[in-house]
Amino acid sequence: MSKPMFEKIALVGIGLIGSSLARVICREGLAGHISIATRSPETLKRTQELKLGDHYTTDANEAVRGADLVIVSVPVGACGAAAEEIAPALKKGVILTDVGSTKASVIAQMQPLVPEGVHFIPGHPLAGTEKSGPDAGFAELFENRRCILTPLEGTDPAALEKLSEFWRRCGSNIDTMDPQRHHMTLAIVSHLPHIISYNMIRTADDLETVTKCKVIKYSASGFRDFTRLAASDPTMWRDVCLHNRDAILEMLARFSEDLASLQRAIRWGEGDKLFDLFTRTRAIRRSIIEAGQDVDVPDFGRQALRNLHLMQE
Amino acid sequence: MSKPMFEKIALVGIGLIGSSLARVICREGLAGHISIATRSPETLKRTQELKLGDHYTTDANEAVRGADLVIVSVPVGACGAAAEEIAPALKKGVILTDVGSTKASVIAQMQPLVPEGVHFIPGHPLAGTEKSGPDAGFAELFENRRCILTPLEGTDPAALEKLSEFWRRCGSNIDTMDPQRHHMTLAIVSHLPHIISYNMIRTADDLETVTKCKVIKYSASGFRDFTRLAASDPTMWRDVCLHNRDAILEMLARFSEDLASLQRAIRWGEGDKLFDLFTRTRAIRRSIIEAGQDVDVPDFGRQALRNLHLMQE
Repeated sequence: MSKPMFEKIALVGIGLIGSSLARVICREGLAGHISIATRSPETLKRTQELKLGDHYTTDANEAVRGADLVIVSVPVGACGAAAEEIAPALKKGVILTDVGSTKASVIAQMQPLVPEGVHFIPGHPLAGTEKSGPDAGFAELFENRRCILTPLEGTDPAALEKLSEFWRRCGSNIDTMDPQRHHMTLAIVSHLPHIISYNMIRTADDLETVTKCKVIKYSASGFRDFTRLAASDPTMWRDVCLHNRDAILEMLARFSEDLASLQRAIRWGEGDKLFDLFTRTRAIRRSIIEAGQDVDVPDFGRQALRNLHLMQE
Repeated sequence: MSKPMFEKIALVGIGLIGSSLARVICREGLAGHISIATRSPETLKRTQELKLGDHYTTDANEAVRGADLVIVSVPVGACGAAAEEIAPALKKGVILTDVGSTKASVIAQMQPLVPEGVHFIPGHPLAGTEKSGPDAGFAELFENRRCILTPLEGTDPAALEKLSEFWRRCGSNIDTMDPQRHHMTLAIVSHLPHIISYNMIRTADDLETVTKCKVIKYSASGFRDFTRLAASDPTMWRDVCLHNRDAILEMLARFSEDLASLQRAIRWGEGDKLFDLFTRTRAIRRSIIEAGQDVDVPDFGRQALRNLHLMQE
């Protein structure tokens, strides 16, 4: 049997991303030993029941001792505290990375605490579902997904290549970019869609309370699509809003401007303008499907699943 | 073999809804004869190739002659023209219905043209996908979906019951409500989500053009969800915007107010407020799944389909 990529991998945080990592690391044999730390005793117990690692502790400092790869998978607001806890126990030459949806704020929190000799390379796998917790993870989560690394000035090329290879073995395609570019991109492709979804559900829920207009009963006509993103982890998304504030506010301003102009076209009955806009957007879904970023089946394949009688809708 | 429900059904318009109806009518043996009319010779040719009916014509007047059920499935802006064309040929006692996403404007267009002795009962099956045209239809489209009927004053109860039974045989559950209630409900559960999706894609596309920020490449992180609704039929949605204007503007105003307050919470770093909102919305997806209105699998089942190797994502 070939030697694993890492002798010991420590996973700090074991939610959807952390537990998916544990599963794919195990399946691919990427570590000689997996140590898992989480603050919550209940989550730790569940992680043990699921047999996700070799060693379990609520003490992140203990978990990272002797590890040659440490992956911090906690909400971005908790990265600083995690770094503070683990910093004294990190061994020389270890690769330290994270999976947070924001990068500049993670760097600001963690970098000052990273001891010399530790290769700190921030990362962000663009993968997830609306579920959270160690039960929600699965080994295939990262397959054909992008993983963005935002190496800092002076990053060791060998460490960067090793971390890239790790993510490739998890199934991902690697991109590197600077944190600022990452922020603007993520604000539009991920943060804005989540915030808009949360807002849509809130508007509807207030109305449901006010008018009892049966939003849930009739949700299959479009509304339900938004409920998926709006069911995502609240702690994670609170932290994203707080930690990528400027880019998000910029995107919200653009979105609101565009919405106001669309609203005006509806009010004044500008049919041609509406038709042109609605035609232009159709082409974009086509591009996304051609780029392999979504399934080419109607209704995200819900109907296909129903036809297979795999589940009741 | 038992007698079909209707001797002759005429389908005026043969897009996603019309062609799904043709398929389920055929599968369930609901008509002795299916006559199909569409204005476009290309669509008519394709409909014949697909063998969706017994008789094909570009002349709606010809199609409805002698029919005891006529279903108008055209964009809501074209209902008036369709009614004008078919009115002289409708036989006494025929049930005339439509499938439009707006009701008051359909009633305003069609009712004045409906001859005496014709049972005009507006309807709206809450079913669809982002695809359009006769190839996009399938017999299972209406299964476990709601169909809303908005009977007018003085509607014959026997005719209403017969139309309800028709939709039940297509797999739907029937609700009746007045057009005003239908408008407010649909504005929030369907029209607003579509308009917001169109707007999201537009904002992103403008940005992509400006900054080349790789929206499509990274779209799996949330954005792609919006592209499905935004790929819906432009003509249909232009007409919905023009024909349910007041209810849509009311919902857009509420949505924008809520978004402004969310934006403010982000700007001022009000983490608790964000957390509370993001928690509340999570419960709503749960209700929708419990109400049988969506699949209870992560990521709408995309991952499940990938795992089944049924399709390449």
